[in-house]
Amino acid sequence: MPTPVNPPRGMRDHLPADKRRREGVLSVIRGVYRSYGFDEIETPVVEESSRLHSGLGGDNEKQVFAVLRRGLDLDDLRSAESVLGLADLGLRFDLTVPLARFYASHRAELPTVFRSVQIAPVWRAERPQKGRYRQFVQCDIDVLGEAGPLAEIELIQATTAVLEALGLTGTTIRVNDRRILLAMLAHWSVPEALTDQALIVVDKLDKVGVDGVVAELVDLGVTTPGLDDALAQLADASWATGEGDDAPWLDRAAFADLVALRDALPGATLRFDPTLVRGMGYYTGTIFEIAHPDVPYSLGGGGRYDGMIGRFLGSEVPAAGFSLGFERLVDLVTLATDDDEGLALVYDKKVEPVELLALQRELLAGGERRVRLEKKAKNFTNQLDGLAAAGFTRFVTVRGGESAADLEVRTIG
Amino acid sequence: MPTPVNPPRGMRDHLPADKRRREGVLSVIRGVYRSYGFDEIETPVVEESSRLHSGLGGDNEKQVFAVLRRGLDLDDLRSAESVLGLADLGLRFDLTVPLARFYASHRAELPTVFRSVQIAPVWRAERPQKGRYRQFVQCDIDVLGEAGPLAEIELIQATTAVLEALGLTGTTIRVNDRRILLAMLAHWSVPEALTDQALIVVDKLDKVGVDGVVAELVDLGVTTPGLDDALAQLADASWATGEGDDAPWLDRAAFADLVALRDALPGATLRFDPTLVRGMGYYTGTIFEIAHPDVPYSLGGGGRYDGMIGRFLGSEVPAAGFSLGFERLVDLVTLATDDDEGLALVYDKKVEPVELLALQRELLAGGERRVRLEKKAKNFTNQLDGLAAAGFTRFVTVRGGESAADLEVRTIG
Repeated sequence: MPTPVNPPRGMRDHLPADKRRREGVLSVIRGVYRSYGFDEIETPVVEESSRLHSGLGGDNEKQVFAVLRRGLDLDDLRSAESVLGLADLGLRFDLTVPLARFYASHRAELPTVFRSVQIAPVWRAERPQKGRYRQFVQCDIDVLGEAGPLAEIELIQATTAVLEALGLTGTTIRVNDRRILLAMLAHWSVPEALTDQALIVVDKLDKVGVDGVVAELVDLGVTTPGLDDALAQLADASWATGEGDDAPWLDRAAFADLVALRDALPGATLRFDPTLVRGMGYYTGTIFEIAHPDVPYSLGGGGRYDGMIGRFLGSEVPAAGFSLGFERLVDLVTLATDDDEGLALVYDKKVEPVELLALQRELLAGGERRVRLEKKAKNFTNQLDGLAAAGFTRFVTVRGGESAADLEVRTIG
Repeated sequence: MPTPVNPPRGMRDHLPADKRRREGVLSVIRGVYRSYGFDEIETPVVEESSRLHSGLGGDNEKQVFAVLRRGLDLDDLRSAESVLGLADLGLRFDLTVPLARFYASHRAELPTVFRSVQIAPVWRAERPQKGRYRQFVQCDIDVLGEAGPLAEIELIQATTAVLEALGLTGTTIRVNDRRILLAMLAHWSVPEALTDQALIVVDKLDKVGVDGVVAELVDLGVTTPGLDDALAQLADASWATGEGDDAPWLDRAAFADLVALRDALPGATLRFDPTLVRGMGYYTGTIFEIAHPDVPYSLGGGGRYDGMIGRFLGSEVPAAGFSLGFERLVDLVTLATDDDEGLALVYDKKVEPVELLALQRELLAGGERRVRLEKKAKNFTNQLDGLAAAGFTRFVTVRGGESAADLEVRTIG
């Protein structure tokens, strides 16, 4: 018996039922974003190695699948000064670095405010584990060139509409602002050099609790008095937190922007969460994440990142984006099946191909949406089960000499 | 001024209009293949390096983009015995090697006769030139597990239906059989060791003519008397060539199979072409290619390749496939636009976001299919041109305080 043959480690094949389901969900996402005026683009799966290691990708840069330069020989290996120097390209680890590169390449051909959709795979050489893959699909929308709050509002409205179209009810958008986080740290006298580390700690509040966070902050050298009370307030924060005067750490201007955001989106449920951090250091303003009652992880997130899109262009471009975690969504969604009631044409092997093909054409021309030829198997019950699993709801038996009108349609199952 | 930023060499970005057009054509292809009972699958973009260099890919194996193993250090480079040994994965160069691997991985979960569709990009590190890209999309259908002629008939019928649905008329399917080519070479006493080289020469008949082919065959050491007459007959070949007795080189059994194929496909135009070779050595029976009067290259091709799919499985699996060259098709096709008559909501910057969003929602709920918010630009004529190019056919102006019913819809252009 041959050894089992598998797809590359941490990556998946998609069999017909799975692929169909995925394409169905993607089609809903694509349709809703388009209806809200977003334009889909596509970039190559690889980008130049230097762009993937320009510091915009944070820890993801360590997980790049690097592509070897072509035409290397052993001498090149012997004289190489670094492993990475042998690679000129890499598989993208997100869709934001490619978007920044795309924008720099095509700025002149794009509208002043460009609303992009990207629905495409990305790759990360993570240690494979349950629910984490080395190739996975992201769905990103971005509004480039709009400095005002309309960008965030449009992103959240369109994404909320996608979730609704997918039948996902009960989702909440947790919102915060990078400025609120920075002002809070400043209020606690956290030195600027410790910002990133301190934020990683604050992000764990819901996991390790107030005492845990205080302990870790103390480890960092942050010993502000009253930190535990402040953290307890953070853990219970809501819109009401900003109403009185008892949140001295709160950046009032940024909070007012969040209130305006909430009020502009009556159709969505926004929750103010000052512990929301999001990993990427490139965010400059509003940040948000989708919470769903059935799952402990977020279904997507994003925010404003004004400094980044213009990096390769060499000029400032205001930008905000929202990324849906497609692999998480697709597991959660039960789409009303648009199954097209396939008809199986089960034939005896003596029937001439020309006759089968003519019947298939005639049935399709007569309004059938999907017709498959199936040689009658010895185990017919098994065969019908397989057809049912593939979305075929009816069958006809062809013995030869019938016209399409003669065929008796039977239901499967 | 910053240096121009481009996508990686030989690869392309797809801007909105281009992307939309491509997705439209893909959607037609996907729909027709599905209606004929084919099932779409997807595999990861990379495969193990050893599989991509197993000899199944011919010259394409030299054009693999190789992916570096993770965690290498300089010592690994110094001690490497080959460049390729540093790579464990590679970007696929076609969809057939992945299909063979997929089939080996999932045989037990697939029907006895499996009709697959794959629509996906492949990568080849070719020298970039006009019309040839290093990342391009292929559309493959394959019938696995069917040894009889029904496989080829179904492939050609479904592909012909795709071409028709795309509005491509006047296409011809050139057909030949690998057995006819081999019998012909044997008749000319070409040594078996020269088969591949001799076939490459015969393939050039329409470019270099009879004298050119004879000269190249002589260079190979093939000096059969009467070769020029035989080649002249090949150049003029048609179905009539097989009618009389004056084609002694013709494998009659294989020719009869081609006649049966033609007769089973009254809806397609098949032309017998004994000079059709197709590059890949893995073909074992029927081979075919799509010719279109407007272009000098083929739009796709395929054939029977019984030895290959079972290679990784370790058993024989009869197989035949048809691959459409998507990049060539998409340039040729003029799809009836399914444009959804977008409506632009042109607003004065003083209008509150909450009001704009409410109007957008109301218009979409009222039946509009696509509504984009557009801040009124100084150069309004330019702005309308841009909207028209993006598929927006109408606009409304919002000054604040209007309800959706108040808005006066104007036509763009």
